[in-house]
Amino acid sequence: MSKLVIVGTVAFDAIETPFGKTDKILGGAGTFIGLAASNFNVDSAVVSIVGGDFPQDYLDLMSDRNIDVSGIEIVKEGKTFFWSGKYHNDMNSRDTLVTELNVLADFEPKVPENYKDAEVVMLGNLHPSVQMSVLNQMPTKPKMVILDTMNFWMDCALEELHNTIKHVDVITINDEEARQLTGEYSLVVAARKINEMGPKYVVIKKGEHGALLFHDDNVFYAPALPLEEVFDPTGAGDTFAGGFAGYLAKTADYSFENMKTAVIYGSTLASFCVEKFGTERMQNLTASEIHKRLDQFKSLTQFEIELN
Amino acid sequence: MSKLVIVGTVAFDAIETPFGKTDKILGGAGTFIGLAASNFNVDSAVVSIVGGDFPQDYLDLMSDRNIDVSGIEIVKEGKTFFWSGKYHNDMNSRDTLVTELNVLADFEPKVPENYKDAEVVMLGNLHPSVQMSVLNQMPTKPKMVILDTMNFWMDCALEELHNTIKHVDVITINDEEARQLTGEYSLVVAARKINEMGPKYVVIKKGEHGALLFHDDNVFYAPALPLEEVFDPTGAGDTFAGGFAGYLAKTADYSFENMKTAVIYGSTLASFCVEKFGTERMQNLTASEIHKRLDQFKSLTQFEIELN
Repeated sequence: MSKLVIVGTVAFDAIETPFGKTDKILGGAGTFIGLAASNFNVDSAVVSIVGGDFPQDYLDLMSDRNIDVSGIEIVKEGKTFFWSGKYHNDMNSRDTLVTELNVLADFEPKVPENYKDAEVVMLGNLHPSVQMSVLNQMPTKPKMVILDTMNFWMDCALEELHNTIKHVDVITINDEEARQLTGEYSLVVAARKINEMGPKYVVIKKGEHGALLFHDDNVFYAPALPLEEVFDPTGAGDTFAGGFAGYLAKTADYSFENMKTAVIYGSTLASFCVEKFGTERMQNLTASEIHKRLDQFKSLTQFEIELN
Repeated sequence: MSKLVIVGTVAFDAIETPFGKTDKILGGAGTFIGLAASNFNVDSAVVSIVGGDFPQDYLDLMSDRNIDVSGIEIVKEGKTFFWSGKYHNDMNSRDTLVTELNVLADFEPKVPENYKDAEVVMLGNLHPSVQMSVLNQMPTKPKMVILDTMNFWMDCALEELHNTIKHVDVITINDEEARQLTGEYSLVVAARKINEMGPKYVVIKKGEHGALLFHDDNVFYAPALPLEEVFDPTGAGDTFAGGFAGYLAKTADYSFENMKTAVIYGSTLASFCVEKFGTERMQNLTASEIHKRLDQFKSLTQFEIELN
């Protein structure tokens, strides 16, 4: 069984959308990635940090889905990272109301000994130096390193980000961030410039408009499933990345062709994530639900054309 | 050979983009639709109106691509409709600089006698009452009526628009217009509401994000080809509609499955249209260029997935 190391926040979120609001609930990039990847038959571990206020129930919830939580450091006297945000009516933009770093401020990820030979590493959105420190703990280069990042690090840690992405195989980034990172409006040109920065594969996430996968001169486009209702977009990008990484780890096939399927799995899982608040929809997702939705993706995009 | 009636403006455009600007060149929805549809083996006629200032060369250009121009009324003492616009740097928005209706102000379309039994009618963006007057000239209901419209008519002729779309089979509309027409943000819900207004098939155009085709509970998603450079978006939506209508007329198969392919043809032709100013790229497009790009669309969207 392939091993997958996931690094990312495990956090409390408080979310307000036009449909309602939550108290502090389970959130964090590492959590969403882990839950998404748990749908594949992979030996995965989340590396993160939480405070003494983090409920054992939440750790159990991850363990119950076969996620190794031994790499989640618990700082008894500290408080867990907390984020609060409010989505606008169109659900495409949000305001951050509160960001309390708490124990995350001094996070030094420690990869569990038995995961240092993992084939796949998924570096969730964190300071690029923290992401790099994870790679530095792996004695041999993993088969596939995937990195997610955001505009915040381009604004305040651009040099470190450039240093880290030199060492990754795949970057997942949203369209505006790809434009910011490269200064190019065309996503085709932006992807090529990011290629030159290191990642051989570039995944550009476009939210409700789907995702693009670039590799050399190849492009693949996975739509997002058109939904009647997006209830809460929090974690959709991380869920996409977790599905992508989980599928690659499970199949151990890192070809462009297989990566296309990984992107479809990522989009499929993200389409569930947004149906309920936080991680709720992801906690009990079943294989048959996923297969049914993959079928929807097939009919959404597949067509017959005769070229003569 | 199927007959296709196209109603729409034949006009002069003056366009400014970040890449340059043009003097008055050939433009208009009817022109773009006609040129797109001319790539299919269909007997098509453009019904429109121009002034005495309209060059015979432009009419010849259409005739040379087997477009019947006998339904284009020439008002000798009048001036041709003129539109001028300037695109912003992101190419996704534009300002209209000049709109001179000229002969279009009194346009009363007259369908040529030998096209009154056409199987397919493509109603390009015009006042909904003008669109309706075309349908009223057809003694029996055509097999397929496709209507394109825009927000302008929702603002100033909403009742007439509602009256006309009751009689059409397919509506093509962009995402913001679908939201305006229905008051619904979700395109899935918007499409269902438009269904209830008349059109059994709803095509929502999302520009660089592709197009969605809705019918009952079926959805199909055609991406736009990711391009290095969009030189001039003018006419892309009309070209899409012309490719869609032309393919349906040629195949005379109005099933959802075949309409998926029609959407792919529309997207393919639109991807050429934006490569040069105005109609330039569409004037000499060849079948082999189109086939090559259809192949690109296949590899862009097709994937293999094993569900067990």
